[in-house]
Amino acid sequence: MSGNSFGQRFVMTSFGESHGPAMGVIIDGCPAGLEFDEALLVAELRRRRPGQEGIQQQVVTQRSESDSPEILSGVHQGKTLGTPIAIVVRNANQKSSDYDHVKDRAGHADDVWRKKFLHSDPRGGGRSSGRETVSRVMAGAVAQMLLKQVSPATKIIGYASQVGPLQLSVEEEQKFLSRQTRADEFVARFPSVDQDAVKNLLLQAREQGQSYGGLAKLTILAPPANLGQPVFHKLKSDLAGAIMGVGAVAGVEIGDGFDSAQKLGTDFHQSASSVYGGIRGGISTGETITLKVAFKPTSSILDVSKNGRHDPCIVTRAIPVLEAMIALVLADHLLWSRQDRL
Amino acid sequence: MSGNSFGQRFVMTSFGESHGPAMGVIIDGCPAGLEFDEALLVAELRRRRPGQEGIQQQVVTQRSESDSPEILSGVHQGKTLGTPIAIVVRNANQKSSDYDHVKDRAGHADDVWRKKFLHSDPRGGGRSSGRETVSRVMAGAVAQMLLKQVSPATKIIGYASQVGPLQLSVEEEQKFLSRQTRADEFVARFPSVDQDAVKNLLLQAREQGQSYGGLAKLTILAPPANLGQPVFHKLKSDLAGAIMGVGAVAGVEIGDGFDSAQKLGTDFHQSASSVYGGIRGGISTGETITLKVAFKPTSSILDVSKNGRHDPCIVTRAIPVLEAMIALVLADHLLWSRQDRL
Amino acid sequence: MSGNSFGQRFVMTSFGESHGPAMGVIIDGCPAGLEFDEALLVAELRRRRPGQEGIQQQVVTQRSESDSPEILSGVHQGKTLGTPIAIVVRNANQKSSDYDHVKDRAGHADDVWRKKFLHSDPRGGGRSSGRETVSRVMAGAVAQMLLKQVSPATKIIGYASQVGPLQLSVEEEQKFLSRQTRADEFVARFPSVDQDAVKNLLLQAREQGQSYGGLAKLTILAPPANLGQPVFHKLKSDLAGAIMGVGAVAGVEIGDGFDSAQKLGTDFHQSASSVYGGIRGGISTGETITLKVAFKPTSSILDVSKNGRHDPCIVTRAIPVLEAMIALVLADHLLWSRQDRL
Amino acid sequence: MSGNSFGQRFVMTSFGESHGPAMGVIIDGCPAGLEFDEALLVAELRRRRPGQEGIQQQVVTQRSESDSPEILSGVHQGKTLGTPIAIVVRNANQKSSDYDHVKDRAGHADDVWRKKFLHSDPRGGGRSSGRETVSRVMAGAVAQMLLKQVSPATKIIGYASQVGPLQLSVEEEQKFLSRQTRADEFVARFPSVDQDAVKNLLLQAREQGQSYGGLAKLTILAPPANLGQPVFHKLKSDLAGAIMGVGAVAGVEIGDGFDSAQKLGTDFHQSASSVYGGIRGGISTGETITLKVAFKPTSSILDVSKNGRHDPCIVTRAIPVLEAMIALVLADHLLWSRQDRL
Repeated sequence: MSGNSFGQRFVMTSFGESHGPAMGVIIDGCPAGLEFDEALLVAELRRRRPGQEGIQQQVVTQRSESDSPEILSGVHQGKTLGTPIAIVVRNANQKSSDYDHVKDRAGHADDVWRKKFLHSDPRGGGRSSGRETVSRVMAGAVAQMLLKQVSPATKIIGYASQVGPLQLSVEEEQKFLSRQTRADEFVARFPSVDQDAVKNLLLQAREQGQSYGGLAKLTILAPPANLGQPVFHKLKSDLAGAIMGVGAVAGVEIGDGFDSAQKLGTDFHQSASSVYGGIRGGISTGETITLKVAFKPTSSILDVSKNGRHDPCIVTRAIPVLEAMIALVLADHLLWSRQDRL
Repeated sequence: MSGNSFGQRFVMTSFGESHGPAMGVIIDGCPAGLEFDEALLVAELRRRRPGQEGIQQQVVTQRSESDSPEILSGVHQGKTLGTPIAIVVRNANQKSSDYDHVKDRAGHADDVWRKKFLHSDPRGGGRSSGRETVSRVMAGAVAQMLLKQVSPATKIIGYASQVGPLQLSVEEEQKFLSRQTRADEFVARFPSVDQDAVKNLLLQAREQGQSYGGLAKLTILAPPANLGQPVFHKLKSDLAGAIMGVGAVAGVEIGDGFDSAQKLGTDFHQSASSVYGGIRGGISTGETITLKVAFKPTSSILDVSKNGRHDPCIVTRAIPVLEAMIALVLADHLLWSRQDRL
Repeated sequence: MSGNSFGQRFVMTSFGESHGPAMGVIIDGCPAGLEFDEALLVAELRRRRPGQEGIQQQVVTQRSESDSPEILSGVHQGKTLGTPIAIVVRNANQKSSDYDHVKDRAGHADDVWRKKFLHSDPRGGGRSSGRETVSRVMAGAVAQMLLKQVSPATKIIGYASQVGPLQLSVEEEQKFLSRQTRADEFVARFPSVDQDAVKNLLLQAREQGQSYGGLAKLTILAPPANLGQPVFHKLKSDLAGAIMGVGAVAGVEIGDGFDSAQKLGTDFHQSASSVYGGIRGGISTGETITLKVAFKPTSSILDVSKNGRHDPCIVTRAIPVLEAMIALVLADHLLWSRQDRL
Repeated sequence: MSGNSFGQRFVMTSFGESHGPAMGVIIDGCPAGLEFDEALLVAELRRRRPGQEGIQQQVVTQRSESDSPEILSGVHQGKTLGTPIAIVVRNANQKSSDYDHVKDRAGHADDVWRKKFLHSDPRGGGRSSGRETVSRVMAGAVAQMLLKQVSPATKIIGYASQVGPLQLSVEEEQKFLSRQTRADEFVARFPSVDQDAVKNLLLQAREQGQSYGGLAKLTILAPPANLGQPVFHKLKSDLAGAIMGVGAVAGVEIGDGFDSAQKLGTDFHQSASSVYGGIRGGISTGETITLKVAFKPTSSILDVSKNGRHDPCIVTRAIPVLEAMIALVLADHLLWSRQDRL
């Protein structure tokens, strides 16, 4: 296997198996002198693991992940040194016996991995697990620190716009977006008026061993302009690749996306500022960028009598990961753009 | 600018401005000993430029591109040497005066490029032009040669499933797919029963200076198994990035895509073979891979009285480019997978 | 800073500051199914740190490095998974006060680093320390495991051929090489007949705060053939870059090296097998490869009254690092060569 | 084969076989807005091919290379666009019959290449030819343009310090260096007082089919400071790799090089400014950088009665190539250093 690095300038390398000693990430290419916000790192890890506390507690899987990050290198007296930043999180439970009851999980990639790598690891080397996203979220937190200092107005806001049969109305969506804050306080990160509806849907699904697909939307407010390289590393291309690389994602749109396929050119280009989704010719204009992401229903539909350990809708958990990937793409292109002009 | 290379093992580098002397491509990493099928190269270039002849003649832009490829290196006595393969196509018309009347084209990226690179090139350096896809199609032809020899059963078939208001019916789609051939013989590569309907729609659009969005679908029959690296270079991730990097693409789906967002887990995973779209855990299973791509209406809605030079629906022209990008991703991962096992 | 990765296929990324919590390495690209020889890893780390015990004890710096490696990922039940291999070694002494007395060390790069990165780290970010070589030696050990299994006859043997004023005679060198074993049992890895001479030289140098330059030679017995890419990644090019990247190295030769500059073509090419040093056209022939490396005298010439903590001749300590870098280059090209032919 | 690209930020890709239609280079990553000095490009190509005219006429091979560069992309109205710069030079003689009489050339890599790539190309794919250096010299010329504009005081000066038995005296060397100009006006780029001696030596060697090894020295005056990444892309490491990648190079030194191996630390570090060779901790200090390069005698010792086509000492021809490679390394690190700090 290889391909565990992401980015061309702000390069993160992910490592760790879900049943091994630790998950971790190395970031190579972060400039020296950045203020390292350890609280932000911890907060992002907590957002990724919403099962233990707060409003998401009941609707996502309760995993025994404490996820206390240890910074092994790259930071000194609160600032980045310019050297590689290594961050590690220990795995609380290293035994894969934990997964004994899910060995034949429909939709899991275990058999595919075994065929490719010829090994007998019970969970595809432990890299196909959602646990790997710990590394992405940690790297994304560092990317956010860079964005905060270089482009402080930029905000990356993800939310669920559909959870199984429930969809946000246009009004709910506009109201939420006008707040310009994250969706963490809403059940399942679904900012609907009727919070009980989504809660009940998901609680019932857990009981029944059912799962739902869903949609996430992402809004990048005030992104830096001039990001993206025009041919193969268009900003939209790197964003789409990053997002499609997240587990269970089955589709991604930028701007008006699939809706634009239905449109007349004369209509489409009159309402230009919204429809391009903040990217033209592959390059960010500085306007709001919008993305829509489709998720399959999670595949771990278990024998509920055993422990019911599954996420009835993966979107809730995936949002901090999507936000992290977007931060990584922006940070990467921010450094890359330093090479554009003489 | 940078980022003009694509791939990690089978690496293609694209160059050339639409108004400069030539377009070209270098392929570094193609193994030695491959039979070089020059007829296939010429045929793919002709497929990309359907305006001059045949069934697409009336419905796409008639550009003055002769596109006769010259192989500058890498091939000797009909076989690849293992050295970089360089292929060049001369531009018939190097003057950008040609574009004088489109200087204020809505939706074009010219101003964005000027802001990024601070130069005065009339067409964003001439790289944002659709003409750049010549390089992709040439590289894709070489990738196809590699696939043909290593995985002869593999076929990449693209077609339009929607052109503006016209959509293929399920029956039309199934009938077309059962033939397992390309869509070139259909008007606008839209394999509907009523070919006149799409022809008339597009002819009328040309007259009126109107354009339509649309959908392309891509089917990869008998892809090699075991392609894809599990974390950041999942096959679905690299495919999505490659496809989103094509001009006017606004969305991409794999397998059931956005439809899967509506599904129940219990239903979804029962019909597994189709819904995963031939990729699990980021790795190809050897089963058919399906993709759906959304296109915005083209932005060159011109003053028709001048020359009417625009494509009423870009999907027709984009299909050979999408097929080329998919061939490149498969060839790249085919070589990459040689490193998987001891 | 960036550039902390080495290799194109077997890619190692090094991290850690000498005064931080830990040093470590990630290896991405190691094939699955390799038997992981943890004893070899431990042995290589011990060879790098010869101060604590055995024959090198008196002639090198006694650093408080215990260097017990922890494998965080990539290995399961004694075999590589194909996933990234992460190995970490804790730093015994994280305080940089340790270096207070060497703040103005002649020849050290601290000021250069401060100028480049604008930070106040006392030791150039702690990356310029010789301690960073822990990461290289760990990665080199894994590369050796790969070589052992794929090319079991290959041996990489380094030794000192000159320590300050002392030089090996031709006879001493031939005798040593005929044994085809490592030089660890010789004082300062200098396989001379008169071991007391080199021992006394170095003990006296330590007392006096003196240091010497020296030469290392490296012999690669039975290297795999066909390694090297012909233009910019010739095997000799990658070896030279890897070796020159080791601290205090000031020159590197392949085969007859600088001696060949004095030769007549007619003489030179008659004795071909030896003089090419096992590499022709940038590609390994399978014959023995020989390298010679020049080292500057170490720059840490300290106030001896304080702790005398310096290496009188760096060559002794550098040899396991050079051997590691060579193993990494070979492993990288071994995987790379899988792409050469159809 | 692969590995035909050089650089991490200012990336050049070389292509072309000596017996094919053309040699060429693509430069990806050159910033937009650079004044493109076509005269400099032509001049550098002429310097590389000194056989046709002037003072080197008699002492180097007279090859039928006209080498008129055609710029295919990346430059518009005298400035770089930021798009990939493609430059091509046609090969005057595409037939490999030309090489019939050298098929069994001692020291050539033809057999090695055949073994690696399994093809029947008479000259290892035509990439092992010295003709490939056309691409390097063209890319080096563009790198020089970048250096000229960003760091106008920087000069890269190469010269032969030894040609077979003839060596420059210390006085000759100092006198030459004090002029701070290139060595082109000296026979064999060997700036000795007795120009007849070197001329006669080489003329006689040509008649006799003899060849000599030699030494080149390179002086980089006023290099930009802060170039180099501290661990694996130290400036000295990248320079050594680049130089060792040139044909016939057998050794490379930085600063005092192999001489420093003989020195006492106390002596060495007192004369610090000269001995470090302008690089400390892998990073340029802004002081003069010096390099020494050893060349083997050329291997094409032919049957003189046929056409006497060989270089009696390759150093003369290699100097513009070495200068080009150094310019490329500096340009690459210049762009890279833009990422160092916030």
